[in-house]
Amino acid sequence: MKTAESDAKELSKIVPVSSRLEGLLASRREGWTLPQPFFNDPEVYRADIDSVWRTGWLFAGHTCEIRRPGDYFLVEMDSDSIIVIRGEDGVIHGLHNVCRHRGSLICDEPCGQVPKLVCPYHQWAYHLDGRLLAWRGMQPDLNKDDFALRTVHVREAGGLLFINLAANPIPFEAAENCLTALLQPQGLGHAKVAKAVDYEVKANWKIIWENNRECFHCNANHPQYIKANFDHYNADDTTPRIRDEMAAVVRRNEAKWASEGLASTHRNPGMTRFPDAERGIWFSGNRTPLVDGWVSETMNGKQAAPLMGDYREADVGTVRVRTLPNFWNHSSCDHGVSTRLLPAGPQLTRIRVWWLVDQHAVEGRDYELEALTPFWQLTSEQDWIICERQQRGINSSAYEPGPYSTFKEYNVEAFVRWYLQALAK
Amino acid sequence: MKTAESDAKELSKIVPVSSRLEGLLASRREGWTLPQPFFNDPEVYRADIDSVWRTGWLFAGHTCEIRRPGDYFLVEMDSDSIIVIRGEDGVIHGLHNVCRHRGSLICDEPCGQVPKLVCPYHQWAYHLDGRLLAWRGMQPDLNKDDFALRTVHVREAGGLLFINLAANPIPFEAAENCLTALLQPQGLGHAKVAKAVDYEVKANWKIIWENNRECFHCNANHPQYIKANFDHYNADDTTPRIRDEMAAVVRRNEAKWASEGLASTHRNPGMTRFPDAERGIWFSGNRTPLVDGWVSETMNGKQAAPLMGDYREADVGTVRVRTLPNFWNHSSCDHGVSTRLLPAGPQLTRIRVWWLVDQHAVEGRDYELEALTPFWQLTSEQDWIICERQQRGINSSAYEPGPYSTFKEYNVEAFVRWYLQALAK
Amino acid sequence: MKTAESDAKELSKIVPVSSRLEGLLASRREGWTLPQPFFNDPEVYRADIDSVWRTGWLFAGHTCEIRRPGDYFLVEMDSDSIIVIRGEDGVIHGLHNVCRHRGSLICDEPCGQVPKLVCPYHQWAYHLDGRLLAWRGMQPDLNKDDFALRTVHVREAGGLLFINLAANPIPFEAAENCLTALLQPQGLGHAKVAKAVDYEVKANWKIIWENNRECFHCNANHPQYIKANFDHYNADDTTPRIRDEMAAVVRRNEAKWASEGLASTHRNPGMTRFPDAERGIWFSGNRTPLVDGWVSETMNGKQAAPLMGDYREADVGTVRVRTLPNFWNHSSCDHGVSTRLLPAGPQLTRIRVWWLVDQHAVEGRDYELEALTPFWQLTSEQDWIICERQQRGINSSAYEPGPYSTFKEYNVEAFVRWYLQALAK
Repeated sequence: MKTAESDAKELSKIVPVSSRLEGLLASRREGWTLPQPFFNDPEVYRADIDSVWRTGWLFAGHTCEIRRPGDYFLVEMDSDSIIVIRGEDGVIHGLHNVCRHRGSLICDEPCGQVPKLVCPYHQWAYHLDGRLLAWRGMQPDLNKDDFALRTVHVREAGGLLFINLAANPIPFEAAENCLTALLQPQGLGHAKVAKAVDYEVKANWKIIWENNRECFHCNANHPQYIKANFDHYNADDTTPRIRDEMAAVVRRNEAKWASEGLASTHRNPGMTRFPDAERGIWFSGNRTPLVDGWVSETMNGKQAAPLMGDYREADVGTVRVRTLPNFWNHSSCDHGVSTRLLPAGPQLTRIRVWWLVDQHAVEGRDYELEALTPFWQLTSEQDWIICERQQRGINSSAYEPGPYSTFKEYNVEAFVRWYLQALAK
Repeated sequence: MKTAESDAKELSKIVPVSSRLEGLLASRREGWTLPQPFFNDPEVYRADIDSVWRTGWLFAGHTCEIRRPGDYFLVEMDSDSIIVIRGEDGVIHGLHNVCRHRGSLICDEPCGQVPKLVCPYHQWAYHLDGRLLAWRGMQPDLNKDDFALRTVHVREAGGLLFINLAANPIPFEAAENCLTALLQPQGLGHAKVAKAVDYEVKANWKIIWENNRECFHCNANHPQYIKANFDHYNADDTTPRIRDEMAAVVRRNEAKWASEGLASTHRNPGMTRFPDAERGIWFSGNRTPLVDGWVSETMNGKQAAPLMGDYREADVGTVRVRTLPNFWNHSSCDHGVSTRLLPAGPQLTRIRVWWLVDQHAVEGRDYELEALTPFWQLTSEQDWIICERQQRGINSSAYEPGPYSTFKEYNVEAFVRWYLQALAK
Repeated sequence: MKTAESDAKELSKIVPVSSRLEGLLASRREGWTLPQPFFNDPEVYRADIDSVWRTGWLFAGHTCEIRRPGDYFLVEMDSDSIIVIRGEDGVIHGLHNVCRHRGSLICDEPCGQVPKLVCPYHQWAYHLDGRLLAWRGMQPDLNKDDFALRTVHVREAGGLLFINLAANPIPFEAAENCLTALLQPQGLGHAKVAKAVDYEVKANWKIIWENNRECFHCNANHPQYIKANFDHYNADDTTPRIRDEMAAVVRRNEAKWASEGLASTHRNPGMTRFPDAERGIWFSGNRTPLVDGWVSETMNGKQAAPLMGDYREADVGTVRVRTLPNFWNHSSCDHGVSTRLLPAGPQLTRIRVWWLVDQHAVEGRDYELEALTPFWQLTSEQDWIICERQQRGINSSAYEPGPYSTFKEYNVEAFVRWYLQALAK
């Protein structure tokens, strides 16, 4: 047996987790991938849950999924189950799905409509805002006011719903302002869900983010995506011809969009820089032109559903939003695609992808799922395969950190810096 | 990272389990549900196995399942496999299903008939009482007497078989006297198994007991059960009309039963009080009237099989028995239903439910399973769903202990006190 | 709770693994089976991986599986994935299947043919010997020479490929000489794979070896095998008639084989002694006669495929090779059967069994799988069932070490001594 090594490993178990993490943090080399334990160690995973997932604003779903009072859906984050529900007065509440009596889950179905929240075990009944309304059989010295469902913070921005599990969340206002302004013309608040697909991806949640934060892998892996987008060009490989083509598209769009009150932020090759750990930026959004001839992220670039929101013509590029730790959305003129990550273990992430269209659009008449969904379904599933392959490689004893491309993976490094900062807090 | 909290968690790992458990025990608030770790922590589970499951008398099965010498069945408790087998002389033995040579399981099938116990690996052969009968190829300096199968204690009462894994078990005599007297007229010793169903319930074994120890949940969850029984009425909600109805039923039955030599113990609303940690009571039984018009716990209350045992008429109410940590039985005039729990992990319990009828009853002629089994199969499966839902809720970080109803959950509190006392021993 | 016992268990957690293992090692009684933790404890499993599997020569596959440059197969050992690939110049390389960029697996398929090794994530391209050939998008201050795939040692002997994960492997030469000489006439280097079957056996890898190292279990478990072989006879139970029969077969064969240049080493009852911890012997091979009337390990003893290698007649007995920690092969005149173990967890071992025939043999014309494979497929699967049954028995709290037969299990004890010596290094 390798005594020295084993002893070192063992020693790490009897010092506090925090010290062990500090050692891991110290071992990270800037500009290089994280050491293995960050991707598969149960203690690091617990630290991630505490430091990232219980402190950040988590994308939960869309306001259009719970239009009427009593409409709800569940969000399952690690072992927590959260009810996001619209109250009698239209206000949306976030409630832990745990009865204050014996701890039973209250809602079983992933979404639904309820007049009250009634625990199926002993019928403790709660208002839609979580206050305990009625119980039976409990002794008079107990006070109903002490047994409201535990709440989580909920905020809305541009039709998107976010929850926060911390007692005192970080500010939401800047994100709200940014997303509301950018998403206003998209009309996600008046959308409907055309389709949603759930995935269980056998990879640490950070692997999925790192994949999302670069388009270095797009050429070989995303044949559909690169037809529509410029993201895979970077400072090192954008030829003069491509540069001119991008500039022309941007120029034409900026002029047109400005006249329509839409702002474009995409002028340089490569992906928008995000996140920014140093400035505490965990959200961002921008409007990006598509290549000439494409008005929607569909297989053929053609519009596949009625125009959404305030749009009066199809050529509006794509609105792109991303919020850490668990959300991104690409929205074309006719549909939006939201992606939500939720951690379920050191090497397991639950992912949902939604396709949204205008609320009045009728399937079969105004749109066909076969035309609307393959572009992002293929692109997403291509990424999940990549991520699972990377996880398996990282699990090898031969894995060692490798270098990020400064040309193409600056956002991956930015993500890692953001993550390490959150972890160190 | 949350240093203080993490350090506290970590610290708990380097102090002995006993100290950690002591802290957990100390954190429990009387009259309130147990803290989360009691339901999902692997160390608490190990302590449960050692302190409860390896010290208590475990219901194993029925004498009628092993009528002839060589008949056996297996009991799988956690990672242990126990052979319960009838010896040549009719005496029933409990043997660890582990060959003393290389440790192989000896019996593979869950039940069967064998002339000897022969290990399938190298044919070490054991008598039905566990003594080593023959081996081949072993060196002469080894003594066969040193290699008997390890035994476990077995006791019988009223047709029920109990095993105990401790070297020096707690006394069985009081339980034996109680169960033998109560069950004598039921004739479980001359019964046969009409049906048995195995379940894997994703819940800690204590969640299943807590569910069993109250009928607070019956109104909304057990539509079949509450038609036949008074259990769901308690001191706080028994109306004068119900009280009169119960009194009339009890009066009539007591008079009749007394003339037949049957004793009834059910006079007050609510469930019989059980267990009693302070007096060390881990078993109990009683005869309980059914509501007027019901003579059996079947869907329509009608007798569904021939009278069992000494019964000469159907109106004998139900005999009810429960023994901790793993058994309950409800027996009507025509059939008995036994339920056995066996822990298989912090969040996994294996449950078997048996339906027993008179040994001479013939399916299709004397009884139909469709009439005999739905009442308890539905009621049981309703409970398993409840228990799994509670387990998932308790796993949430938002779970915190809640208060038991003193009117309706006194037996749940009694169970918890019994459990904590066992754990503290 | 059992304070003393629990404390002892807990204490074991806060002392270094090495001390805990030392305690376990010290608790082992010579000539008796190993204590339970050696078969199911995750820490012992980690020690096994480090001390045995990352230091020993592991059988990987056959040279005939990768005939052409670019042919490769993967070996999955614990969480490591190794590419065994033939280079441009015909030399075979062992490479960790982990891209030096972001750690992705490079090869996904278990075997295949590639012109270069190109990571599917960002197309880092490696030579077939692991040197980095091309990357795109990486900054100029990085040096390609620093990013070759990590290599593992590869050696060939008699058509068999072995890998070693250690930086400085133990010597291979003696094994190479032994195996090359013995296997030369068998012609495994000019063979082809007729069939391969993969198994996931729910047993610790040592249980499978212990099963392999004795034929004490053969009489009752291997009806096919014992028809063809003498292995199940040992010093204690070989009757004069059997002894004479063996002697006659050996005499006749030795004379014949000597004239053909083949050596036989099988003269005494029982299995060849192997391994030999004291002399550091982890490999061995010998030629063994079959019983009269059998020329191949097939169901009826008849030849089932064309003669292999240099053989000119069928009556050549069987060549047998075994190398620790993961390989054995039985080869008859017409086919060879290789078995490879790879650990996948404390209680999980992945096993592959290959059947090889002459490279020019054509299925349907020269051989039928139905005749070629059942002998060893049945024998193998009989053993996997035995091993899983032993694992379950050993997991019982009632398991305690038992004695090995000095007549029949001397090689099991030899295996255990070899293992303990490796672990103690």
